[in-house]
Amino acid sequence: MAKVIDGKQIASNLNQQTAMRTQTLINRGITPGLAVVLVGDDPASVIYTRNKSRQANRLGFYSVLKKYPAEVSEATLLGEIQKLNDDPQIHGILVQSPLPAHIPESRVIEAIAPQKDVDGFNPVNVGKLYTNDQTNYPVACTPRGIMTMLETMDIDVTGAEVAIIGRSHLVGKPLQSLMMNHDATVTILHHASQDANYYLKHADIVVVAVGKPQFLKANQVKPGAVVIDVGINRKPNGHLVGDVDYDDVSSVASAITPVPGGVGPMTIATLMQQTVDLAEWSTNND
Amino acid sequence: MAKVIDGKQIASNLNQQTAMRTQTLINRGITPGLAVVLVGDDPASVIYTRNKSRQANRLGFYSVLKKYPAEVSEATLLGEIQKLNDDPQIHGILVQSPLPAHIPESRVIEAIAPQKDVDGFNPVNVGKLYTNDQTNYPVACTPRGIMTMLETMDIDVTGAEVAIIGRSHLVGKPLQSLMMNHDATVTILHHASQDANYYLKHADIVVVAVGKPQFLKANQVKPGAVVIDVGINRKPNGHLVGDVDYDDVSSVASAITPVPGGVGPMTIATLMQQTVDLAEWSTNND
Repeated sequence: MAKVIDGKQIASNLNQQTAMRTQTLINRGITPGLAVVLVGDDPASVIYTRNKSRQANRLGFYSVLKKYPAEVSEATLLGEIQKLNDDPQIHGILVQSPLPAHIPESRVIEAIAPQKDVDGFNPVNVGKLYTNDQTNYPVACTPRGIMTMLETMDIDVTGAEVAIIGRSHLVGKPLQSLMMNHDATVTILHHASQDANYYLKHADIVVVAVGKPQFLKANQVKPGAVVIDVGINRKPNGHLVGDVDYDDVSSVASAITPVPGGVGPMTIATLMQQTVDLAEWSTNND
Repeated sequence: MAKVIDGKQIASNLNQQTAMRTQTLINRGITPGLAVVLVGDDPASVIYTRNKSRQANRLGFYSVLKKYPAEVSEATLLGEIQKLNDDPQIHGILVQSPLPAHIPESRVIEAIAPQKDVDGFNPVNVGKLYTNDQTNYPVACTPRGIMTMLETMDIDVTGAEVAIIGRSHLVGKPLQSLMMNHDATVTILHHASQDANYYLKHADIVVVAVGKPQFLKANQVKPGAVVIDVGINRKPNGHLVGDVDYDDVSSVASAITPVPGGVGPMTIATLMQQTVDLAEWSTNND
């Protein structure tokens, strides 16, 4: 049976470190500041932003939550981003997606100052990560959280063969960058992939981020592989399940993340970690 | 026997198109302007920059070649870039690599205005390509040239399995982005890859960019695969050869690029094409 990768525990340890680093910064006169921008009232987004703001408060951050109605103009929103860019109390800015259809997400993301782009979505930061730039910059939180999990579990990425199902800008692509920068051999699989199982069956590490409940089965996985499940899906009976058929795949994998309690808690913990990174880096530039 | 992909011919056709587009622009009062910056006197760099400037002149561009001694300060070089960024006659700026060790290449590349970054190396443009941004931006010329070759030869990338040997920022990574944006399934192989042949033997398209003479052999390639050779190596006898053992691999591939006369001519033709793109895009922004 596979070892369970306890994301909740790893996230809790990470949060403790983040709280200590926050105290150290506060003692130096710098309070990490996180601004969360929410447009509209999508129920999931309301919950996500509230959780992020609460966790920021819990860690001792200066935290602001800016709410706008779904009809807000692009200009107003960009004006808010500009104010936050200029606000020295704010170190990290995130705009909760999705945005209403009339506001192009890319324009909003590009408006966030790269050094405050706590989600790591600004193309400058994406490009630096992809080219393995050796300076400090933020990266997407879910993939960074996955790397932290693997490191904590002593799972070596160097030289590993990795198959990632799903090529989103939030998970698949930045994770490919991080893995490749750690000398893994990485293939992203997607809806147009003709022979996904060829790659899956050979992979030492399989990551699934497709949003399809219990999609990955044991017969697609190499015995002993590490399986990371990024999906969170609610079944008709109300239960949460991942993109991996957990019971089935557990029988062949060497380690596996559960849902809930796997990747999920790591994302928000990494967001907090990265806010403190940005606050620290901002002082280095003074 | 493999069909030969005649890069020289495809580049020549592309140059004709570029010359026509240049005339159209000149008739509208806009002369495409290319600035090439050369630092030091590395013999290969001297030849490359001269070839680029000559080709720009031949096509009717406004072309400037800025030469600096190897001892130039970073500040002087960045000052030159700033002047070129501000010069409305210049649409494309390229700094020939390698730079002397005391000047960090990334800082110079990041100083080039993204909309004049004709090599497509600025992280903003790298990030936009990786995330498949749908606006106009320059991309690395060698990969773009390879895509043009494949398109000209009616080789479909959609759904293809692609193995790229070499993960450079000039070729491997941006080519992966372009291929993935065209719905290919792509694996980049590199020195830490444990089982490169597993990927090579399955690939519909193999691209080699490692700088090792006649590295790829027929027994590593799936019969009928398309093989793209990015390497240019000079053998002790003075002959130029690619990274592919051409005679050997020709016997199994369905199509193959020769060296010389394959990818090489496409790179410079694409650089010219992209300078005209930048000139056209600059007028759209007015």
